[in-house]
Amino acid sequence: MKAYMLHGAEDLRLEDVVKPEPGPGEVLVAVKAAGICGSDLHYHAHGRCGNFVPTRPFILGHEFAGEVVALGAGVDAPAVGARVAVDPSRACGKCRQCRQGRYNLCPEMVYFGSAAVTPPADGCYAEFVTAPAANCWELPDGFEYSWGALLEPMSVAMHAVMRSGGVAGKSVLITGGGTIGQMVLLVANAFGAARVVVSDLKGFARDFAVKQGASGTLDPADADCAAKAEELAPGGFEVVFEAAGVGAALAQGIAMSAPGATVVQVGTLPDGTAIPANALLTKELQYHGSWRFANVFERVIDMVVSGRIDPRPLVTKVYPFEKLNEAIREAAGGGEIIKVQIENQD
Amino acid sequence: MKAYMLHGAEDLRLEDVVKPEPGPGEVLVAVKAAGICGSDLHYHAHGRCGNFVPTRPFILGHEFAGEVVALGAGVDAPAVGARVAVDPSRACGKCRQCRQGRYNLCPEMVYFGSAAVTPPADGCYAEFVTAPAANCWELPDGFEYSWGALLEPMSVAMHAVMRSGGVAGKSVLITGGGTIGQMVLLVANAFGAARVVVSDLKGFARDFAVKQGASGTLDPADADCAAKAEELAPGGFEVVFEAAGVGAALAQGIAMSAPGATVVQVGTLPDGTAIPANALLTKELQYHGSWRFANVFERVIDMVVSGRIDPRPLVTKVYPFEKLNEAIREAAGGGEIIKVQIENQD
Amino acid sequence: MKAYMLHGAEDLRLEDVVKPEPGPGEVLVAVKAAGICGSDLHYHAHGRCGNFVPTRPFILGHEFAGEVVALGAGVDAPAVGARVAVDPSRACGKCRQCRQGRYNLCPEMVYFGSAAVTPPADGCYAEFVTAPAANCWELPDGFEYSWGALLEPMSVAMHAVMRSGGVAGKSVLITGGGTIGQMVLLVANAFGAARVVVSDLKGFARDFAVKQGASGTLDPADADCAAKAEELAPGGFEVVFEAAGVGAALAQGIAMSAPGATVVQVGTLPDGTAIPANALLTKELQYHGSWRFANVFERVIDMVVSGRIDPRPLVTKVYPFEKLNEAIREAAGGGEIIKVQIENQD
Amino acid sequence: MKAYMLHGAEDLRLEDVVKPEPGPGEVLVAVKAAGICGSDLHYHAHGRCGNFVPTRPFILGHEFAGEVVALGAGVDAPAVGARVAVDPSRACGKCRQCRQGRYNLCPEMVYFGSAAVTPPADGCYAEFVTAPAANCWELPDGFEYSWGALLEPMSVAMHAVMRSGGVAGKSVLITGGGTIGQMVLLVANAFGAARVVVSDLKGFARDFAVKQGASGTLDPADADCAAKAEELAPGGFEVVFEAAGVGAALAQGIAMSAPGATVVQVGTLPDGTAIPANALLTKELQYHGSWRFANVFERVIDMVVSGRIDPRPLVTKVYPFEKLNEAIREAAGGGEIIKVQIENQD
Repeated sequence: MKAYMLHGAEDLRLEDVVKPEPGPGEVLVAVKAAGICGSDLHYHAHGRCGNFVPTRPFILGHEFAGEVVALGAGVDAPAVGARVAVDPSRACGKCRQCRQGRYNLCPEMVYFGSAAVTPPADGCYAEFVTAPAANCWELPDGFEYSWGALLEPMSVAMHAVMRSGGVAGKSVLITGGGTIGQMVLLVANAFGAARVVVSDLKGFARDFAVKQGASGTLDPADADCAAKAEELAPGGFEVVFEAAGVGAALAQGIAMSAPGATVVQVGTLPDGTAIPANALLTKELQYHGSWRFANVFERVIDMVVSGRIDPRPLVTKVYPFEKLNEAIREAAGGGEIIKVQIENQD
Repeated sequence: MKAYMLHGAEDLRLEDVVKPEPGPGEVLVAVKAAGICGSDLHYHAHGRCGNFVPTRPFILGHEFAGEVVALGAGVDAPAVGARVAVDPSRACGKCRQCRQGRYNLCPEMVYFGSAAVTPPADGCYAEFVTAPAANCWELPDGFEYSWGALLEPMSVAMHAVMRSGGVAGKSVLITGGGTIGQMVLLVANAFGAARVVVSDLKGFARDFAVKQGASGTLDPADADCAAKAEELAPGGFEVVFEAAGVGAALAQGIAMSAPGATVVQVGTLPDGTAIPANALLTKELQYHGSWRFANVFERVIDMVVSGRIDPRPLVTKVYPFEKLNEAIREAAGGGEIIKVQIENQD
Repeated sequence: MKAYMLHGAEDLRLEDVVKPEPGPGEVLVAVKAAGICGSDLHYHAHGRCGNFVPTRPFILGHEFAGEVVALGAGVDAPAVGARVAVDPSRACGKCRQCRQGRYNLCPEMVYFGSAAVTPPADGCYAEFVTAPAANCWELPDGFEYSWGALLEPMSVAMHAVMRSGGVAGKSVLITGGGTIGQMVLLVANAFGAARVVVSDLKGFARDFAVKQGASGTLDPADADCAAKAEELAPGGFEVVFEAAGVGAALAQGIAMSAPGATVVQVGTLPDGTAIPANALLTKELQYHGSWRFANVFERVIDMVVSGRIDPRPLVTKVYPFEKLNEAIREAAGGGEIIKVQIENQD
Repeated sequence: MKAYMLHGAEDLRLEDVVKPEPGPGEVLVAVKAAGICGSDLHYHAHGRCGNFVPTRPFILGHEFAGEVVALGAGVDAPAVGARVAVDPSRACGKCRQCRQGRYNLCPEMVYFGSAAVTPPADGCYAEFVTAPAANCWELPDGFEYSWGALLEPMSVAMHAVMRSGGVAGKSVLITGGGTIGQMVLLVANAFGAARVVVSDLKGFARDFAVKQGASGTLDPADADCAAKAEELAPGGFEVVFEAAGVGAALAQGIAMSAPGATVVQVGTLPDGTAIPANALLTKELQYHGSWRFANVFERVIDMVVSGRIDPRPLVTKVYPFEKLNEAIREAAGGGEIIKVQIENQD
């Protein structure tokens, strides 16, 4: 079959590889739609992603949906022909973290298209992938493959909101209006935040946030930014999501937080970032990392099916499977982009 | 001034009483709108409410909004002329419960129009009331007095949802589609439940719930009720609100709950009600009482102002102040009623 | 091998049965010590345990420790010769409850010596049992098999304390000074309760509790019981464990609880037990079922090894394997008994 | 009366000042014992404490106990002659933080001997202080004034443990074996940690920790430190308290934490401290500030009275009131000191 192997920085090649076969408890999925994540862009640009360094070429990609085309031994469901989205989390199920329900922290997690483990795990930029049947969630009628490929990043966003302890009735600030920031906005609104404000240097991101239901926006470069924040949330924001991955955004979010607030780090922040420790202490903040997700994939489907979350505007552009490298250039280009996907219509 | 004194069962008299004067830290409020609560109906019907027995005649009523007409010593805000809703919770602020933030459990709570303390505390079925300035929340422009008089029961509903630990992304059942049940529905939807189902014997209540956004309804008298519940929430409901105050509804709610579910008791249940203890244990439920409210009054205003909750359809009928007894008969009549209010337009 | 099969009420027979072989991921354990639980007594007395009715004869028993004598395919640890205690929870690992970390609620749980599933699962009153390697916890040097056989009920007690949300610095009441009640006492003391009071009709249970470190005891038959409780915990107990499985004890515990308290049901309560609903509501209690346990087995070992919990006094009497029926009569006899065990010294 | 006024850096003068009179709801307390806190040393050394800069000379000190010698209007209890410890937290009781039970975050908090408000609030290094009656906790018979003066820092330590979400059954690391670190050790042990390890560069601190019940110690300068930590807590510590106030200690604590761990910042950390953000994210930590305390003062008394916490070894040396400056030099000297106090025996 055809698949994209990452050989190094800026070196992602469409190659012929052996078509995988589903093992016991697994299914074979023909990939129909796949999204490009910020981490994919990192792997593509640098041949690695932060501390995760691949030890051999591997197939990139972890956001996808497709059709079940074959079953491994012992699989009852889903059936051949089922339309499914795939949760890329393959955790061990036995370690302390798994048993406690935080399987996203499993030290032996084999995540699709990731070099967090050695050797790296192949991903979804391919015609076919094998996946545990238990990781496949059937898409209801009318639920498009494209939306299915959004479920993974939407799960990251929903998990971040869960990590905040809940936003119901609260004032919320999101620093960073990129893909994850916009998705956190959708989830925070759906989960009943009293108001959600998005801060971003880019006008496009702020405008998009308003279209998605933000109560207001902030431009960190604006001299009146702090005063405007106080107007939007008198006394400070009760929950802050740092989705920019920038120290200045963290500092801003903490400065604008209310006493007792919770700050969730969902964007990747460089090691050694300076923290405003005095505010952390005297405002007695909770600062929570948020890593991938656990126990929410199916809830995202529910929220989309019920109409409480509408993911359609998030897909900015769709390329054919053959043009993945072009799609990646577009996604990395810094333009007016939320999410770029590829599709395979055969 | 004119006020309604409760002298005993079915004996609520419009009388001339001394107009109160605001003490230090208090304001005088001219009552513009007031609602009738189920507990008011109990006091009216029986001269008492459960274990709360008045030791002297008192002014009934605790759901209200009005205009500030005079200030006591030391009051900066609200100003004379301000339009306010009043949180009827006057807690001591010093006991263990108050210090821990659960001031709704303050043993010295003086609640408007209630005989929970001795002597009973006068309420709002009057031309004027005095209230602590800190209990008065200013109504934004366009926020009608009638909605202001809904804030107290809406706070009871929001508190009940808070007591569940949150409904975001979850399947929710509400047993009992009376006033509080319908309000819990509004809050649960606003706070991001994946689906909310209302169970009630009355077709009117079920139809009203659907209009308010319920995902489905159940008729407990329906022989297929359990099967329909399983269809609406496969594996059981993750959160149940018992708002009927009936043992059979509690039993139904617990039977339809998922393993690990939380059941919130918001309706008044008779002492000695039988509990399905085996399910409580083997499904390891959390069963939480919910009493009045704490720390949510201002959040309800936020949610109404932001448009996330629309309380307008809840007001079924409004009577003039002079016709309170007629309004009470209507509210107690068992008709197609959600909330009956009185207004004072002078 | 020899094993005790339960054929019906009062009909537990020592028989020759086929010695089991460890499957993939399993080990074979030679049982060295096993305890008798209240549920074993129920099965023995009635041929069933509440709603759990066996469909065929099965081997009873679920509290045990022993020596690993053979390994199934793919098992690295524990090694042959290892001394282990066995967590009898065999959950599916895939359902919603398992993924959320509440695997004790797994609908497909296969618990040793239990008829909660059909067919019933064989237990540990046998010379040998097979168990998943992951369920075996190695006992440190000096940790006796007899203590290892206490880990399961101690886990039930620790889970109950976890279900309370924590007892650190709080006043605690335990209604019922039977085996589980006494174990809850040990855990609550180790976890930092400010004081722990045990209530029981039997003088032996109260005296034993004092020896185990109870701050005080209550006799429910004492006319001054309520006054004494108020003296021991002014304003009421903040956490109550109902370990008697009796409606009167639940009523007492709720009456003696503080506003905002948490009540944990750890004893099996009959369906239809009357609940003091008014107190549940106006004191806004949390009433939590506690079912078996999750994620604590290894913590109990830690607490025993560190000397924070001393389980030795809990073992009242030990019988040889051959005298299990005699041991059961002793345990069921209502005498001055906490825990009866059997041992197999071959 | 005599009192110590801070006029600037290294300028604390014993002066004659006007003896205060208790206002309504207040009592006058003759100070009998008072402790020296790290923040007192900062004020003394620099004339300020971090961002808190006094606008006029003020009386320093906030850890104290004494005898009630006069009552203001409306005070029933405590009585004249009562022996009391005083919670120095005078919060407004009305703001959002107070109403939610986090009164330690009250923006209008007037804390004894602190320049966090303007003008600064006078403290307890005086013959007499006035205090709200509600802040005075009576000391039981046999509870010495010296222990009473330990209740404030012990409350800081207990609050920090509460901020961790609980340590029961968990592995705990404390970085920094100064006064607060040693107190956190006492509380963590009392609240049921499975093991508590203290890390400090100073041998005295490590030895003292072992005497207080630490399961083990670490020397950060030791090349094998990480390996020893892994041995003491395989897989990492589940809860970390950063009590050193040093960035390197925070980095060490985070490096040694388990996936999903909670890290509590209880020591004052410089603004701009670098944080190991990658671990925060991929181990999905909770990093919580802990500021002063709320709702625990009375629990500390309970724990001391019940014998679960023994504070006596914490008091290293006691000076007479007249020798406060000498006591401060001793406390600041970096010697083998945990807590230095002054006493007033007149």
